[in-house]
Amino acid sequence: MLKIFAAPGSIALASVILLEEVEADYELTILDFSRNEQKEAAYQAVNPKGRVPALITESGVLTETPAILLYIARRFGADSLVGAHDPFVFAKIQEFNSYLASTVHVAHAHRLRGSRWTDDPQAIEALKKKVPESMTQVIRLIEDDLLKGPWTHGEAYTICDPYLFTISSWLESDGVDTTALPRLMAHREKMLARPATQAVLSQIN
Amino acid sequence: MLKIFAAPGSIALASVILLEEVEADYELTILDFSRNEQKEAAYQAVNPKGRVPALITESGVLTETPAILLYIARRFGADSLVGAHDPFVFAKIQEFNSYLASTVHVAHAHRLRGSRWTDDPQAIEALKKKVPESMTQVIRLIEDDLLKGPWTHGEAYTICDPYLFTISSWLESDGVDTTALPRLMAHREKMLARPATQAVLSQIN
Repeated sequence: MLKIFAAPGSIALASVILLEEVEADYELTILDFSRNEQKEAAYQAVNPKGRVPALITESGVLTETPAILLYIARRFGADSLVGAHDPFVFAKIQEFNSYLASTVHVAHAHRLRGSRWTDDPQAIEALKKKVPESMTQVIRLIEDDLLKGPWTHGEAYTICDPYLFTISSWLESDGVDTTALPRLMAHREKMLARPATQAVLSQIN
Repeated sequence: MLKIFAAPGSIALASVILLEEVEADYELTILDFSRNEQKEAAYQAVNPKGRVPALITESGVLTETPAILLYIARRFGADSLVGAHDPFVFAKIQEFNSYLASTVHVAHAHRLRGSRWTDDPQAIEALKKKVPESMTQVIRLIEDDLLKGPWTHGEAYTICDPYLFTISSWLESDGVDTTALPRLMAHREKMLARPATQAVLSQIN
């Protein structure tokens, strides 16, 4: 059976939602970041990066959301979730998730995780200050160009949807004016209406 | 024919090396970042993100290095490059590239691209100052744990290798003591010995 480690408010939500969508049999462990459980020896042995999610499989541990989403979809034979029918669509789905991981999630991380990149308390404050602007900028590309609707890549729900949903749930806390993002907010509503999303939110948030 | 946009010193090198490895027929366009060509209208029409690489295919434009590497390998039928024989190995290869994109490349970017995350000149200097430490930390995980040797995932060259090589070529400029990274340096030497790498370096750097 798969085991997954998650934490409230973290990007791990995306992978847990996907596990529900594919009706996987899995065991969920919730770490308490306020007690720094992700830095304790027990979890370091699972994931030396000290982050969530981590997915334990029979073959070993997997980390990094884009890789975990792809693995879950393939393991449960859900070809439509990854655009497996067309190499270009498959690549566009990976492109979208890579943008979320390396640009959008990173912009967000400058609000609470500035100490990754500076030890200077004033610089950490300066990083926080720009998050509303930088998050608005990187999310606008999704609102205006990338989000086809109703799902990220059009008519079919894909592995991008729980990932986008999770990041979009951070926008108000990041100081982004979500009333200016009607397409993204419609996507959020559609995600919230899905039983898989609801099942996970009742466990994690 | 595929067309790819790159720039000296950029992460685009990884995708061009892979195009050479698979003996693709491609056209290379080199942008001059010192003249901000990536922000000009002609390139914005190709990639609104204003970054490289961008790969133009018959189906449309692809961006984001992890997605481009995967697409090139699949298009040229190079299953061994992506660990296609085993879903777990395939996922581990994606995990590695995702770590490079969202953690290692991001740590590096704080040296020259701090203005993405703050407008404060003093904070931009503070970000630069920590790069030697933060890059050393994120690259040590590769040196100590992730790099199996001789190639990233063991005996077979994969799409992770040109990606790791490109980022490892930045380490000295980032202030990392590479004499403490013997396994990574051995990987660099092996990469430099490959004709595909040499062919690309003679065109781009």
